[in-house]
Amino acid sequence: MKNLNQYLALKAEIINQEIQKLLDFWNFPEPLNGAIHYILESGGKRIRPVLTLISCEAVGGSIDSSIPAAIAIELIHNASLLWDDVIDADELRRGKITVHKKWDKNLAILAGAMITTKALELISNDPNRLGLYLNALGTMIEGQILDISKSVDASNELFESKNESEIFEVLRKRFQEKVYEGLEWGKNTDSSKLTEFVEFEEERTYFNMISKKTSALIKLATYIGALLGGGTPEEINALTDYGFYLGLAFQLRDDLIGITSNEQASGKPIGSDLRQGKLNLYTIFALRNLEDEKLDELLSLMQNIADSSTIQKMRQILEDCGAINYANEKLQFISENARSALSLLKDTDSKTILNQLITFTIERNF
Amino acid sequence: MKNLNQYLALKAEIINQEIQKLLDFWNFPEPLNGAIHYILESGGKRIRPVLTLISCEAVGGSIDSSIPAAIAIELIHNASLLWDDVIDADELRRGKITVHKKWDKNLAILAGAMITTKALELISNDPNRLGLYLNALGTMIEGQILDISKSVDASNELFESKNESEIFEVLRKRFQEKVYEGLEWGKNTDSSKLTEFVEFEEERTYFNMISKKTSALIKLATYIGALLGGGTPEEINALTDYGFYLGLAFQLRDDLIGITSNEQASGKPIGSDLRQGKLNLYTIFALRNLEDEKLDELLSLMQNIADSSTIQKMRQILEDCGAINYANEKLQFISENARSALSLLKDTDSKTILNQLITFTIERNF
Repeated sequence: MKNLNQYLALKAEIINQEIQKLLDFWNFPEPLNGAIHYILESGGKRIRPVLTLISCEAVGGSIDSSIPAAIAIELIHNASLLWDDVIDADELRRGKITVHKKWDKNLAILAGAMITTKALELISNDPNRLGLYLNALGTMIEGQILDISKSVDASNELFESKNESEIFEVLRKRFQEKVYEGLEWGKNTDSSKLTEFVEFEEERTYFNMISKKTSALIKLATYIGALLGGGTPEEINALTDYGFYLGLAFQLRDDLIGITSNEQASGKPIGSDLRQGKLNLYTIFALRNLEDEKLDELLSLMQNIADSSTIQKMRQILEDCGAINYANEKLQFISENARSALSLLKDTDSKTILNQLITFTIERNF
Repeated sequence: MKNLNQYLALKAEIINQEIQKLLDFWNFPEPLNGAIHYILESGGKRIRPVLTLISCEAVGGSIDSSIPAAIAIELIHNASLLWDDVIDADELRRGKITVHKKWDKNLAILAGAMITTKALELISNDPNRLGLYLNALGTMIEGQILDISKSVDASNELFESKNESEIFEVLRKRFQEKVYEGLEWGKNTDSSKLTEFVEFEEERTYFNMISKKTSALIKLATYIGALLGGGTPEEINALTDYGFYLGLAFQLRDDLIGITSNEQASGKPIGSDLRQGKLNLYTIFALRNLEDEKLDELLSLMQNIADSSTIQKMRQILEDCGAINYANEKLQFISENARSALSLLKDTDSKTILNQLITFTIERNF
């Protein structure tokens, strides 16, 4: 995997340099400027804009033509991180204190709005392209709404205002009552693709949510790269599908890391989703299949994620009930779909990298 | 003023109907849909989009051509209200409970982002126009940053995290040390216009802030109406200037209402700005000119705005030291500039209405 990392790092460097130029050019008033520098300079692998560049090259294009579009995607991603961290009240991101914690929530909200505005400015000379970005932005916001509202009763207050023990009571009750079954969380243009591997209703709400929250932007990244690189309609479709499945795989793996990794490796607080009563495929499966006694044990472990031994116990329960196996099988299926989408492309170094990236995504621990 | 109100109400009805169509069309998942309906159906005079329609007619255009542009402006305005209320922690807006209070902050943040996205979608078919909207959006965000960061030390945490008594201590100290003098709050393309009536440095920071926070969008509303109505460059410039000055007058009057009106008439909590340590022209003047003893009295009244007798006492202090007179003179000057901008336009009913609107703006009590 050494070649992959080197390759990605080289492409990320192109993105970093462009972002640095933009930061110098913008020169916002303080404290906005400081906060925007902080989030945009806080590293990350720049995987979304790098995917745009690679997709552009994979269809024979020159990356120069796709750089502004790639940067716009990275900016939108960072805006969503600022808002997500406020919403989830997370205090760590990429191993650093989050903006809303270092400064305050209001600044984080406004910095997110400003970065989004600047992202759209970068691509505002092309109405067609702009429509795609606005569409992805709307879809991401919907995904975020689903993510926070799915935990508790959507017709009532969101979970934020409830305390932790209440959240877990509500969660439990809702599962016992099977209230998720048959719920429709808004329209999803990718729903036919989801049908291929969704087995039960709660799972559909989960995949629908992550396809909006995570895949929408990654799919846009590969689509726009292929488009600007001059790909054929077939090539563009293939790379769009690849981005869609890669996004799902990325989120599925991210959720597992969020439960079972440690803070140092992941740069994020462990168990934050669980503590907030958010669901993912692992917990959905466990809550659906565990006997009452084990369910109680898991829920009380979730409520008190104190140290690595708690996390170890949770992981054990998830393994014993087959949740990790189950999700890993989905992960394999999804990554096979991503690979098969690529098979249509000509054999190039870019294609090899995109294939390696799938393997990396489903095996990474950080 | 009866004709003016009837005229404005008729135009507002056009806007309301279009917004209703959009709401039906969007049909977001809950609870997003409920929150977006709530803010967009909560009334208001729709003054910004109505200004677009009137400006369009004032240059001989047909309003149909400017309706989507007008709606986009109203949507951006409502997004800014959602965010402002979260940031200011205000609990009342147009006499109703604010979205972040009725649901929660996270939903208000995301609803604001969604409405902004939809606003830009409405005008995304025209790259030039889109650039103008993005520019206004960026300027408004900067204005909001200035509004919240100007209260306390910009290099430190924003005021939000401080308690009220600290805010007033900091405010007082900063004035005594004249730390506002010579400060630059970012670039302002309208700064040459401000120079005409700004007499001291703290005043410049105030007008710079409101020209971004409030005038930017009102100026865009009149500009875009004149542009889409097919106005000459001179007519477009005249209506843009009108919007700029009307925006300043509107905010100046709004600040006075915020201090001296009552909750029932204004639909907003009285004294909210003051309690948060925000400055406006009235308090800036008073803090600059009051003797120590009176300054102490005003600051302690500001900290404990309990009832109408407190507000009455504050108003008295502001009157006695000349703050209200001073601001009223500025208001007159600004409204004269707005009127003189209009003089270039042909005499039409629209022009009469725009002139009446100035009078209404500087005399209103709600």
